[in-house]
Amino acid sequence: MNKEKSTRRIMLNLRTLGKYTATPGNGCTRLPFTEDAYDAKEFIRFLMCDAGLKAHDDGAGNLFGVKKGKNPDLPCIMMGSHYDSVINGGNYDGIAGVVCALEVARILNEEGIELEQDFVVAAFNDEEGMRFGTGYFGSKVMLGQITPEECEKFADKDGITVAQAMKEWGLDHTKLPEYKWDLDKIGKFIEVHIEQGPVLDAQKIELGLVECIVGIQRYMVTVNGRADHAGTTPMDMRLDAVDISTKVVSKLADMARAKNDGTVATSGFFRAVPCAMNVVSGKVEFSMDIRSQNNDNIDDIVNNIKKLLDEECSKCGASYEIEQKLHITPCYLDQDMLARLEEAAKAKGYSYKRMLSGAGHDALAIGQLLPTVMVFVPSKDGRSHCPVEHTENEDFTKAVDIVIDMLKTL
Amino acid sequence: MNKEKSTRRIMLNLRTLGKYTATPGNGCTRLPFTEDAYDAKEFIRFLMCDAGLKAHDDGAGNLFGVKKGKNPDLPCIMMGSHYDSVINGGNYDGIAGVVCALEVARILNEEGIELEQDFVVAAFNDEEGMRFGTGYFGSKVMLGQITPEECEKFADKDGITVAQAMKEWGLDHTKLPEYKWDLDKIGKFIEVHIEQGPVLDAQKIELGLVECIVGIQRYMVTVNGRADHAGTTPMDMRLDAVDISTKVVSKLADMARAKNDGTVATSGFFRAVPCAMNVVSGKVEFSMDIRSQNNDNIDDIVNNIKKLLDEECSKCGASYEIEQKLHITPCYLDQDMLARLEEAAKAKGYSYKRMLSGAGHDALAIGQLLPTVMVFVPSKDGRSHCPVEHTENEDFTKAVDIVIDMLKTL
Repeated sequence: MNKEKSTRRIMLNLRTLGKYTATPGNGCTRLPFTEDAYDAKEFIRFLMCDAGLKAHDDGAGNLFGVKKGKNPDLPCIMMGSHYDSVINGGNYDGIAGVVCALEVARILNEEGIELEQDFVVAAFNDEEGMRFGTGYFGSKVMLGQITPEECEKFADKDGITVAQAMKEWGLDHTKLPEYKWDLDKIGKFIEVHIEQGPVLDAQKIELGLVECIVGIQRYMVTVNGRADHAGTTPMDMRLDAVDISTKVVSKLADMARAKNDGTVATSGFFRAVPCAMNVVSGKVEFSMDIRSQNNDNIDDIVNNIKKLLDEECSKCGASYEIEQKLHITPCYLDQDMLARLEEAAKAKGYSYKRMLSGAGHDALAIGQLLPTVMVFVPSKDGRSHCPVEHTENEDFTKAVDIVIDMLKTL
Repeated sequence: MNKEKSTRRIMLNLRTLGKYTATPGNGCTRLPFTEDAYDAKEFIRFLMCDAGLKAHDDGAGNLFGVKKGKNPDLPCIMMGSHYDSVINGGNYDGIAGVVCALEVARILNEEGIELEQDFVVAAFNDEEGMRFGTGYFGSKVMLGQITPEECEKFADKDGITVAQAMKEWGLDHTKLPEYKWDLDKIGKFIEVHIEQGPVLDAQKIELGLVECIVGIQRYMVTVNGRADHAGTTPMDMRLDAVDISTKVVSKLADMARAKNDGTVATSGFFRAVPCAMNVVSGKVEFSMDIRSQNNDNIDDIVNNIKKLLDEECSKCGASYEIEQKLHITPCYLDQDMLARLEEAAKAKGYSYKRMLSGAGHDALAIGQLLPTVMVFVPSKDGRSHCPVEHTENEDFTKAVDIVIDMLKTL
């Protein structure tokens, strides 16, 4: 392969796709079922056609591009990632994996490499769960794990449900079950992704071969207090939802610090209602996102937080609800593909490291059911989900290079 | 006076004014310099004319209605309150004091009571500080305490400054200094207000004569952490603004509980940025509103919070800013008017109680400079700043009754 040419094509694709953002000049904001997401998807369709792939939508916002193999009856090899982003995120998370898969397809064509199996480039919708509090929406639709009922239940901050948002795109959520793939038709899944953490960059290692993706549990907690005047309500007569919630959330990070196995815990969403300086808050909604290689650590933290909520609410007569938004167990990836990628990296002289992923990915959902592998490329200073997220374009080319070499051996 | 007629007029005025809300069906939301505030002000102008008063605007959103006295060279007697509300507040806070002042004017006219001094009904703008984080804006303009520079500095959540909002109403913030009253022209200030606390209702007392309004300090704190991916950033490499802020805010209410003198502390505004479940928060903004009869208590809590912020930020290398939004010292009200109101209540057989106000009011700003008195009426269950805020209409009539009796003696 011509590395310089590949790097340039990857750079150009990423540069254009970076323009599909709701926050130009302040990072990438491409929420599912928005205009920018739609336009990005259509541009990916163009790139698929340009790479000689046959593109088709699935009716849930996922886009697939197929290069026929010599034996189309064999289960396909799928490669891709997601095209949505967080709010004010970077230009690489997700979309770079789609662009790398497109580059692999272009090289297969240019070099006349004929695979036995179909090679399918996947651009998944709504991996981040940023808008609706869901996660892995697109890949889970493919796996048959999203129901029409869930689409009517999960809503964004303006109360728009997934079902309503789909309608904006002319899609029908009641048909979701039809979009499940026959899983026998997918033989393997490959995802290239930025590390989004500091390990590769700090250790100056070119490629990460992911052995395990940590398990994740995500919850939304609502503490119901009582709105009162901040001046006239004596301290002993308050049901102050901020007081209760901060007493609980202030313990969350420390609980993770007390565990091993790369355990992390985050309350990234925290909203007081009505959120006014002179009103005792009647309600607080906060999120908990807890990850670990070891499920017991996660369960333990969740139970301790519930115990704290019970204690603090009962002190003043407040109440709370806790809703699970995500529950994924740790996922160990495909040893056979890992070994082949490792051989390819060695042969090409790239430095690499077998490692964990602290972030969830489409590969996490898919890897629970199908042979899956991930290749990480370094993230500058480990920064991600923010506008300064950065990876060198040639690092993607290295990942593409070892994927091509692995494909030749399959 | 005809109490039944007064009660009915007060009821009708409040009912109509309750319609000027941005949240019909969910309480009163009448933020300064909005359409609903404008329309409420214009309806008050009509009521002033109807009560035989000469209405005039001051150019800052305040409205005054004047009934000439026998000796207009004497300092006037001003009575009133504010016409703005909090978000999803009640139909009484502020506006009921304007309506009571209008009712006093109507009775003075009907009963042919000629005062020596001018009687001025005041409807002040933006007492709550809900939109811009200011407070007592209207009464402070009258007192010459708001500068054009402040109008350019304070902004609402959408970044609209007071100056820009004034322009929407065709007003010019650079002229604010011209709207200061000659304070020698104001002899006394009287404010009827709902208690907004539980004392009168719980003790079944009809009227509260306010001896002291507590001091208030209000701050906005910004904690600057760093936005990171919630999965890949190890706990020991995070600058998590939510972790830091909850560790600090969780101590605030307890600090107030440890003090006497009716000390209360509230963090009603708490906003994580970007407020996403899978992003470590790069920033948190939270408010502190601390009130006490004793300034030392307030200073002490503020210093302890600053110490905590120093500690928590220095642990991980985060930083913070703290901006004072309000600083008012406790205010003791006019003993002479209090004695006259007490005499009137006794003579009419109303139960009453001398008490403190835990809430700030226009009377707090004005009472720092001019002889001022406040009459409280009961709030059902002490509830205020919420849609269920309620006071019986006849309770307002009792307050109007003793004010009329006091005016006759001045």
